[in-house]
Formats: sequence, structure tokens, C-alpha cells
Amino acid sequence: MPDASFLSIALTAVETSATLAFALSGLLEAARKRLDPVGVCIVAGLAAFGGGTLRDVLLDRRPFFWVAHSEWLWALLALCVLAMAFLRSRHFAPTERAMQWPDALGLGLFSASGTQLALAQDLPGIVAVLMGVITATFGGVLRDIVCNEIPAALRDHSPYAVCAFVGGWVLVLAQHAGTPAGIALLLGAACASGLRVLAMLTGFSLPRWSSGSGPG
Amino acid sequence: MPDASFLSIALTAVETSATLAFALSGLLEAARKRLDPVGVCIVAGLAAFGGGTLRDVLLDRRPFFWVAHSEWLWALLALCVLAMAFLRSRHFAPTERAMQWPDALGLGLFSASGTQLALAQDLPGIVAVLMGVITATFGGVLRDIVCNEIPAALRDHSPYAVCAFVGGWVLVLAQHAGTPAGIALLLGAACASGLRVLAMLTGFSLPRWSSGSGPG
Amino acid sequence: MPDASFLSIALTAVETSATLAFALSGLLEAARKRLDPVGVCIVAGLAAFGGGTLRDVLLDRRPFFWVAHSEWLWALLALCVLAMAFLRSRHFAPTERAMQWPDALGLGLFSASGTQLALAQDLPGIVAVLMGVITATFGGVLRDIVCNEIPAALRDHSPYAVCAFVGGWVLVLAQHAGTPAGIALLLGAACASGLRVLAMLTGFSLPRWSSGSGPG
Repeated sequence: MPDASFLSIALTAVETSATLAFALSGLLEAARKRLDPVGVCIVAGLAAFGGGTLRDVLLDRRPFFWVAHSEWLWALLALCVLAMAFLRSRHFAPTERAMQWPDALGLGLFSASGTQLALAQDLPGIVAVLMGVITATFGGVLRDIVCNEIPAALRDHSPYAVCAFVGGWVLVLAQHAGTPAGIALLLGAACASGLRVLAMLTGFSLPRWSSGSGPG
Repeated sequence: MPDASFLSIALTAVETSATLAFALSGLLEAARKRLDPVGVCIVAGLAAFGGGTLRDVLLDRRPFFWVAHSEWLWALLALCVLAMAFLRSRHFAPTERAMQWPDALGLGLFSASGTQLALAQDLPGIVAVLMGVITATFGGVLRDIVCNEIPAALRDHSPYAVCAFVGGWVLVLAQHAGTPAGIALLLGAACASGLRVLAMLTGFSLPRWSSGSGPG
Repeated sequence: MPDASFLSIALTAVETSATLAFALSGLLEAARKRLDPVGVCIVAGLAAFGGGTLRDVLLDRRPFFWVAHSEWLWALLALCVLAMAFLRSRHFAPTERAMQWPDALGLGLFSASGTQLALAQDLPGIVAVLMGVITATFGGVLRDIVCNEIPAALRDHSPYAVCAFVGGWVLVLAQHAGTPAGIALLLGAACASGLRVLAMLTGFSLPRWSSGSGPG
């Protein structure tokens, strides 16, 4: 019992700090693009909630996270106002470095929970894993599309979606093998986050097209 | 009775001229980008109906406006054909200036009706206001994304979404205070449109990031 | 009976080769933009399934094609891995030329089936035709948006959406005239594909804005 409540508090802490990290990634990109306050709020909101919302539209689930927990919209608004008042450009790089860690935790938690929501609808494993990947990465993809960039997740050769993909399969296989849902979630999340941290520490990068490839 | 029917005619007139103004904004941007006739129709359609359609997808409402009133699709097609036949580049700037006024009225009407549709689903105030903002602004956001621009609504520092936001709150508070729905709608719409006209006349612009901010 | 099964095999062959052509169009654009392996898979998937998925979201239909037939996701993954291993830049142009033919067949089949799905929901003719156009073209539109380009379908003056539009109307009118659904589908698809092939062979291009138009 005490363990369960400790776990629940830990999950909430990871979720909160990861959502904050996602929102800050949008906020910083909006600042770099010199968007106005409306743009800052919308890009931060897309980065924080876009992936989960797209997943819910695809799975036809309602209410969205930010509808059921609308206090998060207030928190996002407050974050944007505070950032515009106090964040200076010299803070950007250190903020981004510090955000890597909650971001990596969020990658695991959000991809695993997205995969599990899809499994609960009896979807095939590959579809469930894809839903996890969408949950974890499409906030950033939408953020970059709105800011008129090719999404970093699709071109920076740093393993991110791939970690979500592997973690998703760990969850799917664990659940098929009869592991209780809570444990399977933690296994999948730990695997995705662990791989991401490993990739950050080793600087591992995804393979490139072989030398004969390129602009046609 | 005569008043009610006059009001209904006035609302229809505002709705029609505002949808026309939204469609023309897409049409002119498509022309500037030298899109082909297909591009002109699609960008004009996105600008006119994109915001309301996205809101309906998020709220899981069907049918969409342009499905229930499919004669609007014919009107849009006719508008695009006529524009390609008769509109010349020297008409662009005057057309845009003339369209500012129905656009400001549409901002109020569409954001207030979007907010009210969300309230009717018992959503929290902040979510309802956000739905109003999405209704009024995301047509333009989608138009700009398709035309490969950072959306003007997110970077031009001219209050637009902010007017929808304030008008939405006026509606929410009025309705919570027991004002009949029709009156609350008009109050919210008038407030949003009024603020927009004020911003146009005074040239007011949203605050910028303080001088220490900028590219990181 | 033998005819019906032959037809069914023919339709499956067209569907398979056309989906392959759509996926390859995404794969080649991702390669030209030097995206990483994740980007290649996601852009190929958007090009192949994006149009039908957007149509299903708008029509509120579930399950999506790639959920009901999740083996297609594996096939897409295999295609991307094989392409990254064996496709060289000197193959790009010939691959694209060869893909024009299944692409033209897919244009007809996908637009006609999209139109028919909308008619089955008793939607008006113009809405049904629009759903067919979205099915056939929005995979490419999403592919280009993610790759930070103005969508080719909106600016290259080559008739593509227009062929889907005409074919869709042929289907709608045939079905209103009492033609059995299967025959109407084939008529509409043949008309759209035939027009596309004609446009390819003659190099026909859509009219441009008259000389007085252009940047305002």
C-alpha cells in the first residue's frame, strides 16, 4: 500500500516535469522564431499536449487530457507569462540542457501510456506501439511544423522515436506474456527512457543513407 | 418578434460576410504564392472553414458546417473561379483593407459561437474559451501552414486571438451569471469585435520579449 | 463468378501497387530532404495512408485502413528498410517515372472509394466528391507539409485533384441514375485515372492567373 501510493506520486512527478519540459521546448522554439505572446502560448501548448491529443483523435477517445485537467491550461498560461517576463536568451541553452532529463523520462512515460491505451482498445501490437510513438513525438512534430521547420524528430539522427518504438514493444510483449498492466507500463517506460539516456550519453546517432544516396 | 427576426437576419449577414472575408484572405495568399487553381480553392476553403472544422473534430461534433450547408462549397468554388477571372494584383491591397471589417465582425461571431458550443458540452470555461479562439484563428493558421509560412496569428503582434480570448471570457462569465444564451453570445461577440476594431484603429501591438531575449 | 473474383484480384492489385507508389513518393522526398530513418518511415507512411486517415477522421469512421490491416505497417517498415539499404540516388528519377502509372491508377481507385464511402453516409454530392479528392491527394499534401514545402498538388498546375473531382462526379451521377455501386465505382475510377493518364501524356496544365495578377 505505501509502495503503491509512492509509485503514484512518482508517476505524477514524472508526468508533471515531463509536460513542463515539452512545453518549455515549444516556448524556446517560439522565442527563437520571435513569435508574439499568442504564438508562444500556442506553440508551447502544441508541444506539451499535441502528441496526446492527436493520439486521442486517432483512437476516438474523449475527453482530452487538457479538457479533463483544465488546470493544466492555466499552468501553461502562467508558464508562458513567467517565461516572457524572466527568461533571457542567455538562459536558453542551459534551460534546454536541463530539460533533456525530464524530457527523456517523459518520452518513456508518454510512449508507454499511449501504447497501453491502444492495447486497451484491443488494437494490434504494431498499431499500439505506433500510438505510443505518436504520443511521445508528435507534440514536437507539430511544434516544428507550426514554426516552419522540418521536424527535428524526423531528421536529427538522434534516437528518440526509436526508443519509444523499442519501449513500446517491450510493453506489448510483457503484457502478452501475462505481466500485470502496471508492471508492463513501468518496464516499457524504463526501457524507452533508459535507451534515450544511453543515446544522450554516448552520442549515438541513427544510420545515414549510404554514400550513393542523396538529392536525386 | 420583428426584433428577433431582424437579429437573425443580422447574424446571417455577419456570418456570410465574415466567411467571405476569411475565404478571400486564403484566396489572396494563394495568389501571392502563385498556387494553381486547385491550391486557390483548397487554401480559400481552409481559411474559411478550417477553424470551425478543427473545433468540431476536437469536440467530436458532426456534421461540419460545410456538410450541413454544402451550398457553401459551391459558393466557395464560384468565388474562386470569379476571383481568378476578374481579380488583378492591383486589387489585392484594397480588397484586403476592405475585408478587415467583416473579418473583425467574424472574429467576434465565430469565437463567441465556438465558445458557446463548448459550454453546451459542459466543458470548463478555459477550454470553452480556447475552442472559441481555435474557431476564430485556426482557419488562418492552417492557411499559412499550407502556404509554408509561420502563421501570422502567432507572430504579427497584432491582437487577434487575444480579442477572441477576452470576448470568450465575457461570454462565459455572462452565462455563469445567468444571462440568457442569446444575450451572452452577443455580449461576447461585441466585446471581441470591438477590441479588434480598437486594435486596428489604434495600431496597438502585443508586448515583445524584453531586449535580453532572442535567438539563443 | 470467375469474373467477380478476377475483378476482386484486379482491385487488390491496383490498391497494393498504388499504396506502394504513394509510399515511395514519400520515401523519395524524405531521402531528398536527407531525413533520418525515422523521418523516412513517417513521411512514407503519411504519403501512403494520410489521405484516407484524414477522410476517416472527417467522416468519423473507424477503424482506419492501417488499423484493420496492420500488416501494411510491417510492409511499410520493410519497404523503408529495403530502400535505405538498396536505393541509390541514381535510382530516384527512374523510380519516380515508373511510379507514375500505379499512382494514376491509385488516384482513380482511392478517390472513387472515398467518394463512395461518403455517399454511403448520405452526404451531399459535393461533399462526397470532396472526400474523394481528400482521400487521393491529402497524403501527398501532408507529406509536403512535413517536409516544409508548399504541397505540389496545390501549385504544380498538373491536373491531379481535378481528375479526382471529375471522376467523383461521374460516380455520384452514375449512382444517382441507379447504376449498381460496383459499376459506378469502376466508372468513376476509370474516368479519374483516364484523365490523369491523358494529362500525363499530353502535358496539359491548369490555367494560370491572368497576366495582371501576381504578388500584390
